[in-house]
Amino acid sequence: MEAYTTLLETYDFALKTNRREEFIHITKKIKNLLKKTELNKGFVKIFCPHTTASVSIIQNANPDVLRDINEILKPLIPHKQQLNVEGNSDAHFKSALFGASLDIPVENSELLLGPWQGIFFCEFDGPRTRKVIVQFFGTIK
Amino acid sequence: MEAYTTLLETYDFALKTNRREEFIHITKKIKNLLKKTELNKGFVKIFCPHTTASVSIIQNANPDVLRDINEILKPLIPHKQQLNVEGNSDAHFKSALFGASLDIPVENSELLLGPWQGIFFCEFDGPRTRKVIVQFFGTIK
Amino acid sequence: MEAYTTLLETYDFALKTNRREEFIHITKKIKNLLKKTELNKGFVKIFCPHTTASVSIIQNANPDVLRDINEILKPLIPHKQQLNVEGNSDAHFKSALFGASLDIPVENSELLLGPWQGIFFCEFDGPRTRKVIVQFFGTIK
Repeated sequence: MEAYTTLLETYDFALKTNRREEFIHITKKIKNLLKKTELNKGFVKIFCPHTTASVSIIQNANPDVLRDINEILKPLIPHKQQLNVEGNSDAHFKSALFGASLDIPVENSELLLGPWQGIFFCEFDGPRTRKVIVQFFGTIK
Repeated sequence: MEAYTTLLETYDFALKTNRREEFIHITKKIKNLLKKTELNKGFVKIFCPHTTASVSIIQNANPDVLRDINEILKPLIPHKQQLNVEGNSDAHFKSALFGASLDIPVENSELLLGPWQGIFFCEFDGPRTRKVIVQFFGTIK
Repeated sequence: MEAYTTLLETYDFALKTNRREEFIHITKKIKNLLKKTELNKGFVKIFCPHTTASVSIIQNANPDVLRDINEILKPLIPHKQQLNVEGNSDAHFKSALFGASLDIPVENSELLLGPWQGIFFCEFDGPRTRKVIVQFFGTIK
């Protein structure tokens, strides 16, 4: 057991989405920020400051999985008549379910993602310009 | 890149819920605790120690969105006959989906919530007296 | 308000699942690791590096609740024909909903779990051999 000092950095980046529903792969952006911080051991926190979008870990090998997830999601939480005059409560609901905040452990300056895991920005009410907040906590070598 | 010491505080507060299903806005309570800690940069962790309730980030501008979310949720996960003699497995299911743990980044002593985001305690089997646990991690000025 | 140094440990353990859908109780494994770290105050982070499984907090007193949750889940997100040739997109969807990452606050070297809460590994496409990553952050006495 060892005691460490904490490294702490906060970044953000903008993202343009292209469709109403879209899963955008952002693992590379997170890896590039990780390199910049020189973090060795700890975790990265990814936060979505929007109420009709999310950040989530999803399979990243076969794009058919993302298409299937959207096909399951559409009839499950339909985009239909609502009290809300903006008509996007389905997107608010999906955003709450998929979540605004996500952490990934880091060891030896690498994300401890599994071989099939990718980090995705989930757009549920686009196209829009979005923001992603990224924080790093832990120790340097 | 800088090294910091870590500030760490644990608080809790009680909450009375009024209906079986209810979304209670707690952003102000979290902001008041944040002021007390003098945290400058880091994150706040909000934890729900119950299995038929959750904490979640949901839109906080138009109350119709919360009503719509409840209207989507009710037929999706109905409150009906179950093996469980307490008859509240729908609430346990919602609790697992919406989640027990939530983090929000902090910079310059402010929550980095988006303009429409609010922090909500989600009651799925009230009315009850509930508890919320709040932790702060990071650095002071 | 006090300033602390940060303790940080990363562990992992393997897990064998026995059925396609299964909730495996892992609270005891996490408590044993917590003892090893001598962490006094902070949090434990549990991470699932798989895209057809999750980690989640669910009720741990009455096994009927787990059976009910599976009975709600099966027709909601059916295991049916999909684009994906592996035919397990339902499992990928459940994995994204239940989440890959979970934190539990620690005080006085104890998990701040509520009396009914248990930590579960959620298998959605077993049986398989799985891995769980566990990190500890905070201070020792």
